[in-house]
Amino acid sequence: MNIPESIQARVIKGIEVFCKSLPEEPKELYEPMRYMLTLGGKNLRPSLLLLTCKMLGGKINDAVSAAIAIELFHNFTLIHDDISDNSPLRRGKPTVFKKWNLNVALLSGDALLIKSYQELNKTRPAKLRLVVELFNDAALKVCEGQQFDMNYETKSKVTIDDYLKMISMKTAALFSASMGMGAILAGASKSDVNKMKVTGESLGMLFQLKDDMLDVFGESAQTGKQIGGDIIQDKKTFLLLKSLELAKGKTKAELTILIGNTQISPTEKVQRVKKIYEDLGVEEIANKQMEMYYANAKKSLASIKTPEKDILLALTGALLERKK
Amino acid sequence: MNIPESIQARVIKGIEVFCKSLPEEPKELYEPMRYMLTLGGKNLRPSLLLLTCKMLGGKINDAVSAAIAIELFHNFTLIHDDISDNSPLRRGKPTVFKKWNLNVALLSGDALLIKSYQELNKTRPAKLRLVVELFNDAALKVCEGQQFDMNYETKSKVTIDDYLKMISMKTAALFSASMGMGAILAGASKSDVNKMKVTGESLGMLFQLKDDMLDVFGESAQTGKQIGGDIIQDKKTFLLLKSLELAKGKTKAELTILIGNTQISPTEKVQRVKKIYEDLGVEEIANKQMEMYYANAKKSLASIKTPEKDILLALTGALLERKK
Repeated sequence: MNIPESIQARVIKGIEVFCKSLPEEPKELYEPMRYMLTLGGKNLRPSLLLLTCKMLGGKINDAVSAAIAIELFHNFTLIHDDISDNSPLRRGKPTVFKKWNLNVALLSGDALLIKSYQELNKTRPAKLRLVVELFNDAALKVCEGQQFDMNYETKSKVTIDDYLKMISMKTAALFSASMGMGAILAGASKSDVNKMKVTGESLGMLFQLKDDMLDVFGESAQTGKQIGGDIIQDKKTFLLLKSLELAKGKTKAELTILIGNTQISPTEKVQRVKKIYEDLGVEEIANKQMEMYYANAKKSLASIKTPEKDILLALTGALLERKK
Repeated sequence: MNIPESIQARVIKGIEVFCKSLPEEPKELYEPMRYMLTLGGKNLRPSLLLLTCKMLGGKINDAVSAAIAIELFHNFTLIHDDISDNSPLRRGKPTVFKKWNLNVALLSGDALLIKSYQELNKTRPAKLRLVVELFNDAALKVCEGQQFDMNYETKSKVTIDDYLKMISMKTAALFSASMGMGAILAGASKSDVNKMKVTGESLGMLFQLKDDMLDVFGESAQTGKQIGGDIIQDKKTFLLLKSLELAKGKTKAELTILIGNTQISPTEKVQRVKKIYEDLGVEEIANKQMEMYYANAKKSLASIKTPEKDILLALTGALLERKK
């Protein structure tokens, strides 16, 4: 994923140290944490935090605990979201909720969220309040975005703007906070912190749109998820909303019949919806939207001149091309 | 409950301000928070925090946000515990989980935990890290205690020591942190902070034992809970464990038959177990145990001489006598 090895190694080391620091008992609380954190995530958010810190002249050492906090928080959201979505698989393995049970997923998720604040509290005093403030604001947005996402499943009228606002909260807010926190920890100016937050936001939007695409057009072996999961769950993704906007006549009627339909098999539903997406060319439109976010990220980074900027842009490009 | 009116008023005002500051949307996230916080809780933990701060010469104003954070955290645990315990009632009203649904209780609980950290982050910079550290340690203990509590429901051999350790985590840790945080915010010495933590621990133990007693010997109209809920759920409380220790012959056989028994009606089960408690006199033994915690609290406060100390001791006495 084009993350420099030195950065990746620091994140992996940090997560290792964290896992080793966990007590043994009660095992129902701490085993699920270790399980999730060693499930082979991409560690994208903590890597972006460290990369940003380095890019703006900061010391990686000053930012590692905040980076680990971001990854712990992200994994807490995954454990709880899998309960809400009743998801069987995560990164190709059983979710905590399925492998253990609801109560274990609930409580180990809670404890992981608290653990993320414990990591965050290791931040140097001079930056502590500001970093925690950014983290809290993003954390709340993630919860709000998740609630809107669930509401949209049953809401009849959802616009593309509703959808983009929802993913800006559910996904992009944490990318934005990661880069903003990296900038704060590097001692960057307010203006540079803001530029990094805007860049992170664009990266997050791009990342989530790509996630929606991979759900339909990806390979299960690579993504580790069930293909067409969003279609089966009637998730109002960019692809579906754009299709509803563009479809006319028979295609519109077909799509309307398919949404919320539990009479046909999931496999057939996924096939037929995918065919409509292909006929309407919504994949191409989504690609254009993602390229716009790429251009936005490039623009907000225009004034920064360091080798890490090129690494960051290459990473953004890789997010566009990713298969998992 | 013998809490000075001025302290109570500050807590109530703080909670009011917090509730008003919440956004309207998404309403599934914020309505349950307002609902829980206005359900008529005793506000015991935030009051203890403020009282301790005042007792040690601190300014109440410096401690209000930490006090509110403690109460938000406590309510987060109630929302999630009610999911785990499948509880229908809380303070005489439907639990969030029953009034809304699992997903709403899960996510609004998560958001309330994050909100508690947002309040905590308003603490003055000089005390921030120390206060958050104490809060985090207690928060994790609460999760660990809750997990042990759930494990004990199905574990065959649980000792009184296991039980006391469990409630020291699940309940007493937050009382201890409340008083410790109050002391830190008053600028108290390390030794005084420790004394307050020890006092809070004793108060929490006493409080939880009384809670167990009220579950069996209380009045539903006053406690707002189903009487005998712990007996129905086969919770290994002090009363049950002490009875198992003391019972002999026919009584022992009867008790063994009743535990885990789903064949007899809940009402009959509660009546028969209660009868055994009465015959064995475990209520009296529990009272003695609580008086020991009262004496411990008094001892750890011995060197403190302010009017607030007497208020605190009167409050502790009231916890012993409480009906709800």
